[in-house]
Amino acid sequence: MSALVKNAAGRLVPTEINGKPAVPYQGVHQFRPSGRKAAPPIRSCADYPADGNKIVGSLREALERCGVKNGMTVGTHHHFRNGDFVANAVMDTLADMGVRDVVWAPSASFPCHAPMVRHLESGVMHHIEGSMNGPLGEYCSAGKMRGLGVLRSHGGRFQAIQDDELHIDLAVIAAPTADPFGNANGVQGPSACGPLGFALADSLYADRVVVVTDNLVPFPCVPWQIHGQNVDYVVVHDRIGDPSKIVSGTTQVTRSPDRLLIAEYIARFVAEVGIMADGFSFQAGAGGITLAFALYLKELMRKANVKARFIRGGSTKYLVDMLQEGFTDYILDGQTFDLDGVRSMREDPKRHLDTSPFTSYNFHGKGNFASILDCVVLGATEVDRAFNANVVTHSDGVLLHGIGGWQNCLTAKCTILAVPSFRDRIPVILDRVTTLCGPGELIDVIATERGIAINPRRQDLIDAAKRCTVPIRSIDDIADEVNRLTGGPPDAPTLGDKVVAAIKWVDGTVIDSVRQSLNC
Amino acid sequence: MSALVKNAAGRLVPTEINGKPAVPYQGVHQFRPSGRKAAPPIRSCADYPADGNKIVGSLREALERCGVKNGMTVGTHHHFRNGDFVANAVMDTLADMGVRDVVWAPSASFPCHAPMVRHLESGVMHHIEGSMNGPLGEYCSAGKMRGLGVLRSHGGRFQAIQDDELHIDLAVIAAPTADPFGNANGVQGPSACGPLGFALADSLYADRVVVVTDNLVPFPCVPWQIHGQNVDYVVVHDRIGDPSKIVSGTTQVTRSPDRLLIAEYIARFVAEVGIMADGFSFQAGAGGITLAFALYLKELMRKANVKARFIRGGSTKYLVDMLQEGFTDYILDGQTFDLDGVRSMREDPKRHLDTSPFTSYNFHGKGNFASILDCVVLGATEVDRAFNANVVTHSDGVLLHGIGGWQNCLTAKCTILAVPSFRDRIPVILDRVTTLCGPGELIDVIATERGIAINPRRQDLIDAAKRCTVPIRSIDDIADEVNRLTGGPPDAPTLGDKVVAAIKWVDGTVIDSVRQSLNC
Repeated sequence: MSALVKNAAGRLVPTEINGKPAVPYQGVHQFRPSGRKAAPPIRSCADYPADGNKIVGSLREALERCGVKNGMTVGTHHHFRNGDFVANAVMDTLADMGVRDVVWAPSASFPCHAPMVRHLESGVMHHIEGSMNGPLGEYCSAGKMRGLGVLRSHGGRFQAIQDDELHIDLAVIAAPTADPFGNANGVQGPSACGPLGFALADSLYADRVVVVTDNLVPFPCVPWQIHGQNVDYVVVHDRIGDPSKIVSGTTQVTRSPDRLLIAEYIARFVAEVGIMADGFSFQAGAGGITLAFALYLKELMRKANVKARFIRGGSTKYLVDMLQEGFTDYILDGQTFDLDGVRSMREDPKRHLDTSPFTSYNFHGKGNFASILDCVVLGATEVDRAFNANVVTHSDGVLLHGIGGWQNCLTAKCTILAVPSFRDRIPVILDRVTTLCGPGELIDVIATERGIAINPRRQDLIDAAKRCTVPIRSIDDIADEVNRLTGGPPDAPTLGDKVVAAIKWVDGTVIDSVRQSLNC
Repeated sequence: MSALVKNAAGRLVPTEINGKPAVPYQGVHQFRPSGRKAAPPIRSCADYPADGNKIVGSLREALERCGVKNGMTVGTHHHFRNGDFVANAVMDTLADMGVRDVVWAPSASFPCHAPMVRHLESGVMHHIEGSMNGPLGEYCSAGKMRGLGVLRSHGGRFQAIQDDELHIDLAVIAAPTADPFGNANGVQGPSACGPLGFALADSLYADRVVVVTDNLVPFPCVPWQIHGQNVDYVVVHDRIGDPSKIVSGTTQVTRSPDRLLIAEYIARFVAEVGIMADGFSFQAGAGGITLAFALYLKELMRKANVKARFIRGGSTKYLVDMLQEGFTDYILDGQTFDLDGVRSMREDPKRHLDTSPFTSYNFHGKGNFASILDCVVLGATEVDRAFNANVVTHSDGVLLHGIGGWQNCLTAKCTILAVPSFRDRIPVILDRVTTLCGPGELIDVIATERGIAINPRRQDLIDAAKRCTVPIRSIDDIADEVNRLTGGPPDAPTLGDKVVAAIKWVDGTVIDSVRQSLNC
């Protein structure tokens, strides 16, 4: 383990991660990348079947043909969320083949990937670069993983692969529909899960790419969200995932009165400060409060006869309803959170648009969609009085959530964090977040059931909110009240010295690190 | 000029082109590329407007911001064909700015680009890498261009840019519709011209990318055939092109009885040898014979109740009719040849699919669409008894046509060249083509009004044609008859020693060179 240095946010971070140098966070928009994008090997059609049929007999055969080696990095996507069957199959096959020290780079991992613990224990897998939830998060937090976990946002994963910080040797793409050439999409077939954008970077930059499908169609598979021109082999499985499990508990509207109040406050705030105007845009993904916000806002839009130009998902039936009822021209969607979203993307592709971490979130492009948004509503596990926020750990310091697109969304014109003021009697507004994921200068509003706090940096918003009917309070005022009610801030978590994971910022620098939890 | 060497096809080619080493053609599927793809500079959103508005006041301002330098390479596309207004405007602006020695790399040039001769004369432009028709072809053929002309197929241009053989410093993309972020398409707006695939490589790999549009729409411009994430600046002009001029004389069905007979022969051949079967595919682009072939084939398909899986364009109203009448599931289209094609691509995007040189033609990918086709019908200026063919010069040796997608299409399962046996009393089947563009081993059938010749390498086709009702003859038999009728082969063209242009093969090697014409 390299020495830790204090970065521009005052957080101790490693300068070397898994043997490679790492750049400490330098502040918002301060780091400028140099160099050139990753350059995949040039291939020749002479080495691929002229008739376009790349099907091989089994996943193992595909992996053998791709060439496997100890220490290789394997990329998978998480559009099936907790219903993915393919990542485990890949790692089991690599284990059977005797491969060791694999780096797994999923776009996210879920509880269904708990069997990976076995591969971490046995030495087949060295470490995970990607979000670690549930059993994998606990395993990493306990300090048991041999390498350092690396957590990146969706845009950060694209950036890292594009910039060759994260080299994918082998990508395996679970595809609900594919043709023998490797063209693939996620909107058709019995396992339809929506877009496949989380696999885009892998398909573009990995040395070898395998598509695994359970719905083979004759060429051409249309739409081709993944281009067969980037695919080496196609494998047909009986079943690649359970699309019913892309729906999680976070795609239900909250029933909690406190959380409904937060949602209503945000909707009224967005309307009353003038963000909700004809042609505006907002992002509202999964999460009980966020969904409720979208429903409240819809009613306000109806009353004011306002139409959005676009809404960003992850999509749910609530957003699809808004599209169909004419409340927006477009949904720009990187991840469908329920089957209504999948159906809409399949049947209404001119208006329900397939986006990717490249189009939406990659910070190392010539702009991205996230910063164009007028307003985004996000959650957080913790915030602090300086408007900094945490999404990966709770106050016990254990890795619990991935970053998702959360960091990437912070560049919206108005970033609103919707948080209950306390959870399980633990205040959510702290003096200092346990893990820093988002710098306070990018977070404009923190909305709680006790009122809304506007970042003092946003005098324009403070002015606009002067006649707002929602209670506007200072962050300290809300935090102090909650501390009085709950008995004060939580105890500091019991952490060891060992760093178990690094949190990347959207530009590839290290914004914070996670230390071993002694309670795991 | 470097020494000439004899390549695997027996053609003398330079080993150095415009100061860079060149690899002589090594035979079909013999050359294997090494190395890695071009790696564009990594950019940062921090350097682009957060609100996504990249509009600048003028083309000159955009070029100034991009940075210009002597000797730079500028890429443009040709979807407007003979109606393009943008390429001339770019070069005029660079001339005003005092830039010298520009390399112009259009995806094709047309007679509307005759004003470029002035820039070649004045020293603003050094040479052209791209097809040279009409006045530009004559200028090059006369030996007046300072650098060597480089002719590439559509797929070859993508390959060269992708492989960093052809580095585009600045791409200027004429876009019939765009938003302030740079998302752009060719299917909407008053200047709609269809897809924008010929600009794809430029947008992906150029250092700087400017979009010029005459139809600015609010973000998001949908579909985004060009991603704004690859675009630096957006410029709004009154008019970027005349879409009526994308229609050329080659999009009319031939009225010549001889050529109609060729078309009929090919259609009957395709049906009778068994290519025309349910789920088959064919390519029929512009060209009077090709269009007539499609119409004949359609009637045979109707009688036999056969439906194609896909047809490849460039699309015309004839192909669009076939799609709408249910003769095919899909049109895969890289270039719309008339306004019916444009409309169909805009209104029927689930079935009329936008393709690009990457998906269709790039030989340095993991396969491409061209080789999957059951059958393609192409033209040629000359063929020879070994089934070699020429598309860039006539028998006077003067550069007249670009290669287009012609070379790329030769990998289809059955490649048929439709040629009249003579033109202006000059036989089309020679002992040796003036310029070699396509190796005979990839050309399966040569169809003339005097009968059809099958390449002896294709014994399977010869067997399948045993009961064919179309006259099947040897190539020598047809050639000898035509020589008797016309008085024999044409005189050898009057050429100087100087090499004025290189013809690239699909893999980037040099398949032939063009020498100065002393008649220009």
